[in-house]
Amino acid sequence: MKPGIITISREFGSGGREVGEKLANRLGVPFYDREIITETAYKTGFAEEYVKKQGEYASARNWFEYSFSARSSSFGMSPEDYLWSKQREVILDLSRKGPCVIVGRCADYILRERKDVLNVFIHASVEKRKRRITEVYKEAEHSDRMLRDIDKKRSFNYKYYTEQTWGKSQNYDITLDSGTLGIDCCVDILLELCGRDIEK
Amino acid sequence: MKPGIITISREFGSGGREVGEKLANRLGVPFYDREIITETAYKTGFAEEYVKKQGEYASARNWFEYSFSARSSSFGMSPEDYLWSKQREVILDLSRKGPCVIVGRCADYILRERKDVLNVFIHASVEKRKRRITEVYKEAEHSDRMLRDIDKKRSFNYKYYTEQTWGKSQNYDITLDSGTLGIDCCVDILLELCGRDIEK
Repeated sequence: MKPGIITISREFGSGGREVGEKLANRLGVPFYDREIITETAYKTGFAEEYVKKQGEYASARNWFEYSFSARSSSFGMSPEDYLWSKQREVILDLSRKGPCVIVGRCADYILRERKDVLNVFIHASVEKRKRRITEVYKEAEHSDRMLRDIDKKRSFNYKYYTEQTWGKSQNYDITLDSGTLGIDCCVDILLELCGRDIEK
Repeated sequence: MKPGIITISREFGSGGREVGEKLANRLGVPFYDREIITETAYKTGFAEEYVKKQGEYASARNWFEYSFSARSSSFGMSPEDYLWSKQREVILDLSRKGPCVIVGRCADYILRERKDVLNVFIHASVEKRKRRITEVYKEAEHSDRMLRDIDKKRSFNYKYYTEQTWGKSQNYDITLDSGTLGIDCCVDILLELCGRDIEK
């Protein structure tokens, strides 16, 4: 079966979003990133900025703290868990519309029952990611620590909801180092895979 | 710079060796697996069977036990460390001969200073690997536990000598699930990458 949906998880600054967008353009299918935020904000009534932040990042500094934070409220569902459940619904709804590329937000895990999903992880060295953030986003240089902190927060969030390890190669059909291979090469490789049969 | 050397690390039963061999054939370059064993056995005087086993697998059951096993002898180099140093020399010698494909034995780490090395990790689900071992090698079915034990031993060995995590996507330029993508697809993807420039 050829992959219909491609999920892209990515390290901060690796260019995974650009890979996803270029891939979607070349495949002529929708690219879901901003749309997930807008739709989830609409469904929950939360501000888009809150959805953007909480939808992918854990706010605590370590796994233990995260597990026992606001989420462990005994008075029903925490805001974060409510957001997660609605975001999950949005992703499931979008996936039913047809082939697409989805970035982040544990989509690989949410769609794990489907046989036509290609799961991708994009990463790059800290040095290359710092360079990219400065060049592409014209932002001030991030320190190594800042970069690692952002990834750690994505990682906690992923582990909390999926019980899997973010970035572990065994969780993905393919992982690519966009720093050594380059963005366009990553897109070409994924495009090639989209024309192949996969067996889940 | 185009990759000249391809190192392939692989989970037991994933078909990583076959990927490497087919890739080498299609590139028309040497494939080093058995040759490393023979050469290291010759250099050390150890039996080939011992080199094969100790060259990739840790014999202890956990990382702690492994670190404090025979290797921690205070009376000079342990046999395992001596084997490692000689195997390392063999890999460095072979790499200097020209383009090639090398399977396992921490070659990715040993050659980390070179800019023309493409590091690959091949994995597959336990279920797919069990099926492959039965079909291809006509061996009795391995239990899940046996498979995981073999991988654990490779993992300990890798960590002991490289201080890196075996199979962690960030350590490789590309990781591929040979179970979902298929062996030939993996070979095609790597062949494509061998014609591209990489920037280490």
